[in-house]
Amino acid sequence: MKSSPVFLDTKPVSYVIGIDSLVYSSRIIEKYQRIIILVDENVKQHCLPVFTKSLPSVESSDVICIKSGEERKNLEQSVYIWNELTRMNVDRDTLMINLGGGVITDIGGFVASTFKRGIAFINYPTSLLGMVDAAIGGKTGIDFSNYKNQVGLFTDPKSVVIDPVFLSTLEDKHWQSGFAEVLKYGLIIDRDLWRSLAGKNFREIDDWNTIITKAARDKIDIVRHDFLEKGIRKNLNYGHTIGHAFESYFLKKGIPITHGQAIAAGMICEAWISQKLYEFDKEQLNEIINMFDINFSRLPIDDSMIPEFFAIMRHDKKVRSGKLNFSLLRRIGKAIHNIEVNANLITDSIKFYINNQ
Amino acid sequence: MKSSPVFLDTKPVSYVIGIDSLVYSSRIIEKYQRIIILVDENVKQHCLPVFTKSLPSVESSDVICIKSGEERKNLEQSVYIWNELTRMNVDRDTLMINLGGGVITDIGGFVASTFKRGIAFINYPTSLLGMVDAAIGGKTGIDFSNYKNQVGLFTDPKSVVIDPVFLSTLEDKHWQSGFAEVLKYGLIIDRDLWRSLAGKNFREIDDWNTIITKAARDKIDIVRHDFLEKGIRKNLNYGHTIGHAFESYFLKKGIPITHGQAIAAGMICEAWISQKLYEFDKEQLNEIINMFDINFSRLPIDDSMIPEFFAIMRHDKKVRSGKLNFSLLRRIGKAIHNIEVNANLITDSIKFYINNQ
Repeated sequence: MKSSPVFLDTKPVSYVIGIDSLVYSSRIIEKYQRIIILVDENVKQHCLPVFTKSLPSVESSDVICIKSGEERKNLEQSVYIWNELTRMNVDRDTLMINLGGGVITDIGGFVASTFKRGIAFINYPTSLLGMVDAAIGGKTGIDFSNYKNQVGLFTDPKSVVIDPVFLSTLEDKHWQSGFAEVLKYGLIIDRDLWRSLAGKNFREIDDWNTIITKAARDKIDIVRHDFLEKGIRKNLNYGHTIGHAFESYFLKKGIPITHGQAIAAGMICEAWISQKLYEFDKEQLNEIINMFDINFSRLPIDDSMIPEFFAIMRHDKKVRSGKLNFSLLRRIGKAIHNIEVNANLITDSIKFYINNQ
Repeated sequence: MKSSPVFLDTKPVSYVIGIDSLVYSSRIIEKYQRIIILVDENVKQHCLPVFTKSLPSVESSDVICIKSGEERKNLEQSVYIWNELTRMNVDRDTLMINLGGGVITDIGGFVASTFKRGIAFINYPTSLLGMVDAAIGGKTGIDFSNYKNQVGLFTDPKSVVIDPVFLSTLEDKHWQSGFAEVLKYGLIIDRDLWRSLAGKNFREIDDWNTIITKAARDKIDIVRHDFLEKGIRKNLNYGHTIGHAFESYFLKKGIPITHGQAIAAGMICEAWISQKLYEFDKEQLNEIINMFDINFSRLPIDDSMIPEFFAIMRHDKKVRSGKLNFSLLRRIGKAIHNIEVNANLITDSIKFYINNQ
């Protein structure tokens, strides 16, 4: 029996984080005989030139370009990529590089890990959200039938390479989505990170390399301990049960909002629920709301939408045996999970969000 | 951090094999709060009543019924199942039971393991092929763009329950497909099994319980040692590199042949190649050809099809870095893998199959 340990799926992921990660990663990708690069049209224009300049050996690689946008993270584009891989005669020794934001790493990871029962892939996140969240932790998937990530799987990339060089290419709305997740790590696990950011608008921040490194480490720590989300990883869902319902609702209606806006709104609601359920300081609640209001505009929500939010929440992957389980805050820097919250309290938290602006 | 060891994906699969397995398996499924049963219309008619009679607790479970047939193991039916699971509000605590032949366990395993990033599933094979091969070893997938299993993944069921009670429902062509794989285990790993069958037509065999138990164990032994097919598992591909090309060709043309016929033909070709490359006894080659001819009619192949067989083989998942690697026989009961065979020898083996009837 021949062994080829490099490719075993039980091997830990190698993470390369910080300035110059791109150049360093040449050691990782040079093992592969063939490379395919997945991008969208924005990444192709703004990031691919930076990428190939740092890694000249990939310049001759085939590129698959899909259409950008969360609403395109769907089965139709997966079929397009599977067809392209088939047309290119890609075999199991090929490496797929997912170069892009959360949409690219989500759909790319799903397609790679289901093509010919799985080819290796490496994530090179180019957005803040990708760097601190989406590219880390092996959650891959696509939206299906109006539900986010309804089809997908847990499967790790061989490596995640996080180089802040790409951040200079980001539009405002993409900063926001990543920043909401950075703030979440502060709230659930990293009080120091929260303190270093509290009261600031994200446009005032200059040392992103430090923030990214801290936030990425927070996420890696959590997913290493609980890859399949049986326990502590659920803390990452803080703000997301309600936040995802908001996001799905507006996605369905075709009203453009950012992931960051939705999650920020969800975190306000769920902080309010936390305050109602635990001996959670009201000052801390106000500090949280204030921080989100400095950085995110409020969602255009009214009471009439609440029943539909509930319908969406009941389809959430976090629902187990029909119960709505939340991850909540005990205090800033400390979260708990598997908390069943009754429907009245959820409704009240959304009403609080609507009326307390 | 809460632990729920029963559901951890790193847990070994539990296999239940032999008469009365069905009844015994109630202990496994009773842990699940909700069960969905996947069947096709034939299984629904012939096997589902037997199933619910042995397991009365599942009688109230929701049933998803898809159309039977290898040509329906496709994305369209996967979408149908994902939609049904969505409509039924299935959550991650639900168990999916794949009750059926290889098509059901392949597509059911794929859909279950990609729905909401994976729900638990158990395979209850109802065909001989399912019992000795398809339901075991975690290969799931669908055909895509005319290629077999082009989309899918390696993912284990929680359990595989193999009860010969269902065999009485089988048509002739389904016996054949399973029997080809039984003979393959004889050739690659289990000389005693081969000797016990040699010279017999499958219709003369009565003790299927013993044969199924031996063959299923052979397969379990191999996949336990090499789940991801990096080494010894490749021996299972004996007969399949050429055999799959035959099968894909006739599938494309819409000419009905059985999987067993295609693989039997592939095993004749690859036994001939083995004989050319190794000190492989010509008597043994004749014994192999004779056994397959007793049990399988020859495929309607002629020389003009050979270029297309090659085109298909080059898309095979077993192709690594562009090379056609074979698993071949050193003698009856002993296989080797990763053998590069040149195109002339492959062509000659197919010509041998055509001319030597």
